[in-house]
Amino acid sequence: MRIVRYRLGDRVGRGAVVGDLVHELPDGNDNPGRALGTLSEVTLLAPCEPRVIVCAGSNYADQIAEKGRPWPEQPSLFLKAPNAITGPDAEVLRPPEVRRLEYEGELAVVIGRTARNVRADRFADVVLGYTCANDVTADDWRADGQWTRAKSAATFCPLGPWIETEMPDPSALRITTRLAGEVVQRGSVADMVFGLGELLAFATRWITLEPGDVLLTGSPAGVGPMVPGDVVEVEVSGVGALRNAVADRV
Amino acid sequence: MRIVRYRLGDRVGRGAVVGDLVHELPDGNDNPGRALGTLSEVTLLAPCEPRVIVCAGSNYADQIAEKGRPWPEQPSLFLKAPNAITGPDAEVLRPPEVRRLEYEGELAVVIGRTARNVRADRFADVVLGYTCANDVTADDWRADGQWTRAKSAATFCPLGPWIETEMPDPSALRITTRLAGEVVQRGSVADMVFGLGELLAFATRWITLEPGDVLLTGSPAGVGPMVPGDVVEVEVSGVGALRNAVADRV
Repeated sequence: MRIVRYRLGDRVGRGAVVGDLVHELPDGNDNPGRALGTLSEVTLLAPCEPRVIVCAGSNYADQIAEKGRPWPEQPSLFLKAPNAITGPDAEVLRPPEVRRLEYEGELAVVIGRTARNVRADRFADVVLGYTCANDVTADDWRADGQWTRAKSAATFCPLGPWIETEMPDPSALRITTRLAGEVVQRGSVADMVFGLGELLAFATRWITLEPGDVLLTGSPAGVGPMVPGDVVEVEVSGVGALRNAVADRV
Repeated sequence: MRIVRYRLGDRVGRGAVVGDLVHELPDGNDNPGRALGTLSEVTLLAPCEPRVIVCAGSNYADQIAEKGRPWPEQPSLFLKAPNAITGPDAEVLRPPEVRRLEYEGELAVVIGRTARNVRADRFADVVLGYTCANDVTADDWRADGQWTRAKSAATFCPLGPWIETEMPDPSALRITTRLAGEVVQRGSVADMVFGLGELLAFATRWITLEPGDVLLTGSPAGVGPMVPGDVVEVEVSGVGALRNAVADRV
């Protein structure tokens, strides 16, 4: 099932995408109700409302080589603030002080049940599904070494377009990022330094994740700048594509 | 006024401390209602429920000298996860993998209204009040340089005992940390590298803070280890004292 959150007029809710139609999907119910309209008639929001967004850094060999970082002995985790969340087709806003804003296309894992001390080989038990993320980063703000600030301004975490819950083999997922239509990043779960199970096991020994919380799994080589007017698309195979235009925050 | 959150039997609510009594204080109401019991009859919880906890690092000259860090040109900010929050008199739990757990006594600022691009000289307009915090840190987990992980495990952010809303001169506040009854840290707002107005102006150019969100303002020199069995007390003059015992997480 493809789970969305939508706005239609004054109404905000949870829905399921069936073909080109968005159907009602009340909380706690997995049976889609009446159709609300087509995807183009409904505004899609970020498909979940995480309280905690855990992010992995340096999780692709090609990106570690590109940045000249040391090979990690364990996952490098940090947080993005939940106010950074924005939805598909919403604008990513560049703060006035930021000269270099970067895209980082990533696979996002959405948590489905309370996750604490998860076993790496049982990680799928706590996963609701998968979506696309752009781990937007203000490169200027990394100077103090604390990534969380560089990555937590408003609109710095586009998520969507939906949560794909049917994913028999997440290890086969591939991530492609396009800037102005050109491919700038390619990666796959198989290329990750720490796989989904290792990341979730490590993260949940540290922090308890709740339903709706999100794990961003790191970005492949090819991270680069984006400027107002650019459109960035992060596509995850078997899930869909997340598109966001960049604009100046005024 | 001294605002608390309390548990009494099955009931959790907001209250006001008047003398030794906790009174009801419904949301959105500043007039204390009936008395519920004495402070010893009611369990105090963390006095607010932040969605975002912004923390300043390296904000006291004596601590920067002690750690041998470079003098900061601007505030160094990071996040603690909201699941780290715990209340007064609750136990701080040392995760099994952590060998060195540290206390960091701090003044906490609680936000009272949506704060974006706050002017440094008008910061008091967005402040609800002040409380005590212990920015508990797993020193072992700082190895990757990302402070947010070292500081975000469950129980790593004791807050309380209450929010003092009447504070004519916050620049005069002093912070004292005691470990097993001995003073281990002394600092004052006057000794901060970046004062409360500068911190809030800088933070809110980066991230929008909402009512109940918290700013931790940094810790003076004297940060050190604590072990199961220790009791740590963080006192802020004119506010009160936050006491927490340390135990092993099992």
